Amino acid sequence: MKKLVNDPADVVDEMLAGFVACEDGVERLPDTDVIVRSDAPVDGKVGVVTGGGSGHEPMHAGYVGEGMLDGAAAGAIFTSPPATEMSELIAAADGGEGVLAIIKNYEGDIMNFDTAAELAGVEYDQVIVDDDVAIADSTERTGRRGVAGTVFVHKVAGAMADRGEPLDEVKRVAEKAIDNVASMGVALTSCITPEKGEPTVDLNDDEIEIGIGIHGEPGVERTEIQPADEITDRLTGDVVDDLNLDDGSEAVAMVNGLGGTPLSELYVVARRLDQVLDDRSIDVHDVWVDEYCTSLDMAGCSVTLLELDDELRGLLEHPVSTPQLND
Amino acid sequence: MKKLVNDPADVVDEMLAGFVACEDGVERLPDTDVIVRSDAPVDGKVGVVTGGGSGHEPMHAGYVGEGMLDGAAAGAIFTSPPATEMSELIAAADGGEGVLAIIKNYEGDIMNFDTAAELAGVEYDQVIVDDDVAIADSTERTGRRGVAGTVFVHKVAGAMADRGEPLDEVKRVAEKAIDNVASMGVALTSCITPEKGEPTVDLNDDEIEIGIGIHGEPGVERTEIQPADEITDRLTGDVVDDLNLDDGSEAVAMVNGLGGTPLSELYVVARRLDQVLDDRSIDVHDVWVDEYCTSLDMAGCSVTLLELDDELRGLLEHPVSTPQLND
Repeated sequence: MKKLVNDPADVVDEMLAGFVACEDGVERLPDTDVIVRSDAPVDGKVGVVTGGGSGHEPMHAGYVGEGMLDGAAAGAIFTSPPATEMSELIAAADGGEGVLAIIKNYEGDIMNFDTAAELAGVEYDQVIVDDDVAIADSTERTGRRGVAGTVFVHKVAGAMADRGEPLDEVKRVAEKAIDNVASMGVALTSCITPEKGEPTVDLNDDEIEIGIGIHGEPGVERTEIQPADEITDRLTGDVVDDLNLDDGSEAVAMVNGLGGTPLSELYVVARRLDQVLDDRSIDVHDVWVDEYCTSLDMAGCSVTLLELDDELRGLLEHPVSTPQLND
Repeated sequence: MKKLVNDPADVVDEMLAGFVACEDGVERLPDTDVIVRSDAPVDGKVGVVTGGGSGHEPMHAGYVGEGMLDGAAAGAIFTSPPATEMSELIAAADGGEGVLAIIKNYEGDIMNFDTAAELAGVEYDQVIVDDDVAIADSTERTGRRGVAGTVFVHKVAGAMADRGEPLDEVKRVAEKAIDNVASMGVALTSCITPEKGEPTVDLNDDEIEIGIGIHGEPGVERTEIQPADEITDRLTGDVVDDLNLDDGSEAVAMVNGLGGTPLSELYVVARRLDQVLDDRSIDVHDVWVDEYCTSLDMAGCSVTLLELDDELRGLLEHPVSTPQLND
């Protein structure tokens, strides 16, 4: 294994230490792997938090800041954070108006947030993001995984809270975003966790996996490597179909690198995505191209679309100031 | 080869098409691979431009925008842009106050910019960045390569031009930054160019190369993989020594991912870098952690330090609005 790490067991601790040493406006709750805004809790504002396994950087802590998240709990690599730390997170984010947790659809995350909410004893509600269209069709969403589309949910909910709206309203727009977002990914190589030091998934030198999960969970099809345009057409088509986007729909798109793919390739994909949406007469508000939700060093990308209405567009454009997003 | 590309010969064209389709405030000069600010030329402002081979994204076009570059010419992968296109770039960036080109120290880039300046026929000057400490010691700087430290030079010169300063003043601060910046990198894996489809450098599964160039040029030492802290100590030590930083010096640092290394590992390195500088009583103004100047899909990172004085600090903090940097 070739990684820039020391003891694999220390990666999360050392990464978070580097994060708070280098980034402004964030701090770490003592003796935890919880990152919060330096000014948390913000009085009179609904707290918006998230959490989950590490290995998806810049998710989650990269989105902590004004206009987005009040805090995020980091678990071990690909492992849910402990409920006790999630509970500290919720308490630290509560400025007297309650806290909304945005949870990706993984059992451990949901279970631990449930326990954490009881421990914290503050006004609390939660939403579950399940944007990955790969492993269940649109009539059976309970099984779908939460992936990169979660970033749009963070953005929208964070903006709503920043406007001073109450908890039920913040939850309402988060759920609207969840209903309107869909993603699908492709892996060219497997991720390698520092602890294991070997590929999570066996992919041959000429194979890719369509619809893979961000922890290397099985996708829907393993195939020979194809031209970028064919791959993009497949991912975009499945996402557009899931959302039932048609002529005149408006959407924001994301081309998300999974960790090991250079930006140049992401722009090649983004170019085709933009063409495909244009061909389908879908109005593209914006295309975000970068690494937003990764799977360690996995090569590949995901495509996400969020269908917009006036409210969601306004929330997306609301100012934000975090280590990863700053507009 | 597993890459998100179509015909390898089309990567640069398609990447730039995606770039201008997805990013605001930038456009492509017709029938070229030149990216300029949409409002170029800016009347009464010195134009600041750069150019070089592709494969280092987000360098160069990611730094085109207010407060930084007026434009950038993209060559084929790891290949200098043609002088004719550089000439179009220079002409497009000239708002009547002349143009400064910031060139990394590669023969082809320098030669083509020389020719381009003659063709453009506008007031023109240039600076050469040679921040890579790996391949020559500090008494023999002519042979050093230009790498990630170039981004700091872009930032400083772009800010000076944005303040409305004349060409000789913009050049002066660019040269000051060049005198005060040093970098060193490490590769864990080779880059793979789309045209060749095979590793540029043969590195065994347990080997890393200290001091490698951003095109896979030889470094100074090939060794077994080491803990991140040892690698960071080596890179940082060489850079600090080159700049003769001592107690009370102030610097801005950069931990730059080379394309295939996840952000989590960059923060592990940044944590140690921050400790090392603190131990040496060097005042760290800020640490930039991200991919700034890559080598396609190479795994690894580089460490850059820019020694600051009041003038350089002010220019670094000057507002900027580009696809990659936005503060």
